[in-house]
Amino acid sequence: MELEKVTHAENIRLAPGGDAVIIIDQSLLPNETRFLSLREAGEMWEAIHSLRVRGAPAIGIFAAWSLYVLSRDIDEKDFEGFYASLREKADYLNSSRPTAVNLSAMLRRMTDTALENRDAPLSELPDILHREAEAIHNEDMEMCRRISEFGLSLIKNGDGLLTHCNAGPLATSRYGTGQGPFYLAKERGMDIHVYCDETRPLLQGVRLTAWELSRAGVPCTLICDNMAATVMGQGKIQACFVGCDRVAMNGDAANKIGTRGVAILAKYHGIPFYVLGPTTTIDRNCPTGADIHIELRDPEEIKEKFYASPMAPEDVECYNPSFDVTESELITAIITEKGICYPPYEKSLAALFE
Amino acid sequence: MELEKVTHAENIRLAPGGDAVIIIDQSLLPNETRFLSLREAGEMWEAIHSLRVRGAPAIGIFAAWSLYVLSRDIDEKDFEGFYASLREKADYLNSSRPTAVNLSAMLRRMTDTALENRDAPLSELPDILHREAEAIHNEDMEMCRRISEFGLSLIKNGDGLLTHCNAGPLATSRYGTGQGPFYLAKERGMDIHVYCDETRPLLQGVRLTAWELSRAGVPCTLICDNMAATVMGQGKIQACFVGCDRVAMNGDAANKIGTRGVAILAKYHGIPFYVLGPTTTIDRNCPTGADIHIELRDPEEIKEKFYASPMAPEDVECYNPSFDVTESELITAIITEKGICYPPYEKSLAALFE
Repeated sequence: MELEKVTHAENIRLAPGGDAVIIIDQSLLPNETRFLSLREAGEMWEAIHSLRVRGAPAIGIFAAWSLYVLSRDIDEKDFEGFYASLREKADYLNSSRPTAVNLSAMLRRMTDTALENRDAPLSELPDILHREAEAIHNEDMEMCRRISEFGLSLIKNGDGLLTHCNAGPLATSRYGTGQGPFYLAKERGMDIHVYCDETRPLLQGVRLTAWELSRAGVPCTLICDNMAATVMGQGKIQACFVGCDRVAMNGDAANKIGTRGVAILAKYHGIPFYVLGPTTTIDRNCPTGADIHIELRDPEEIKEKFYASPMAPEDVECYNPSFDVTESELITAIITEKGICYPPYEKSLAALFE
Repeated sequence: MELEKVTHAENIRLAPGGDAVIIIDQSLLPNETRFLSLREAGEMWEAIHSLRVRGAPAIGIFAAWSLYVLSRDIDEKDFEGFYASLREKADYLNSSRPTAVNLSAMLRRMTDTALENRDAPLSELPDILHREAEAIHNEDMEMCRRISEFGLSLIKNGDGLLTHCNAGPLATSRYGTGQGPFYLAKERGMDIHVYCDETRPLLQGVRLTAWELSRAGVPCTLICDNMAATVMGQGKIQACFVGCDRVAMNGDAANKIGTRGVAILAKYHGIPFYVLGPTTTIDRNCPTGADIHIELRDPEEIKEKFYASPMAPEDVECYNPSFDVTESELITAIITEKGICYPPYEKSLAALFE
């Protein structure tokens, strides 16, 4: 399918007729940009399961649109029949990645919407579900836009900016979070240059972020993670922007492994370090970073993955933490869709929930 | 050929009969440990050219032994004939890597030795060259041993130690420089644990250092470069040891890209950072690090090398400096074969040459 060239990697959208969801197959990036048009439940399940669509918000949006498409084919005589069929399809999609919280939350939001409209004419239910999927999509886009706007307020024309990992359009919708301000800066005609860490071991920086930035025409330079100190030392970086996976109430922030090193380098060079994410990533049950559990992943990701042949001696021990926790004193500000929080974070983060 | 299991990766040695040089084929590491027995000039040239033997000191030692082996077959009636043939073989070996300073220096030392012994009986010249090659090898081993001993004096039993890139047995002889203290600590029965950065983009840490350490039985854990901040933050690292390519007279030190980042992280965590290398790497014509030229290498090394398929979008810009310069205020001490230099380096380094 030939689609128009879009500035943002438009990762998920409803097909014009409403009978399919169109996605970019992320598993083929960056070597191939292939769009898939998915009509059957089995194809949708497989797309999530095989990481053709990935990123928590993106999965939730995709699942909502998918359930709408599938709801159009439900041929039942009463609400009970319709609802049972809808729930069955939702449960099936949900089984594609059992630990993805956003996936189950958005599917539940869709089935709950049907339930709330049990008294509406049966024929109108697909339209109601269409509006809900659209709302889910728009809310995420709006949240990303607001985070990006707040982030943009901290960028000056001519700035060099460094980022790590991927929290961009592919994982969310339109702007993304951690890299959102870069796309907005480009739209506003600002002159910025982004330095993009490749992000070992899974290389999200090179495979996804560099691809997204290039596609959007944001001037960017790819570097290995261990080159960040060099470009900072050369005065090329005026600010660092990263996403986050979880933020503790004292401002400690968990994000992709390597983030804390960037923050320490930034502090040494007197460069501001910004963490961006929706308020939903701020965990009110988590007082400090010490309470955040860090997943240890398979050594194979360091020793073999992506390579033509293994790079490490077979028996060598590896340590492969998926995330690290950046202590709040290294973070200049935390940027949410509700505004920019500065230290002391105990106060500024708590104020978001008042 | 089955060789005895050696603790140190014995990268270069003369074959028992003296008619060949035996090397580990470094280009096959770590997936295969193959020893090559090289008898012909063409094989020797190819071994250097194809990086089967690499590391400046190792190349020099290999070339000296190779020239000795080749000198045994020179069948001339007078010194002029012998010397002309020897020079011809030396020039040929030297053409294998035209920019390797150690290669040409050691070959010249061998041919100069022949010239100095022009009055000796022709039949004795190969033995004289054998002694010179042995001296070159022993001098490097002794230099590495002394650097390692000085380094070892800074290690306490139970220490966790972090290193970056490769300056070990494969690149030198026996102990190496940057990683030398680890092998000596192991020999002395000390309890240490080494964390080894994989060292992007060329992965010398995983392909060579982790291989050498495992082979020698030094407990070691492989990490990605961007995980160094995490293990430091966990209190696992008591000191960092790295090699160097060039040291300025003010103590600024050029080494493999990523070294400066490690030094900044070490400073943030209050961990000593040691640079190890022979006095020949201290450049008396180089006042500060600003005078050190940094080679920029092919983006292909970041985007494609080692991978089964390219990882980066084809048109994305890359910055790929081969080295970085660590400013002297980040360096706790510089360790040479003549002793340990502390700040102010202007004085302590200058004193080495008095």
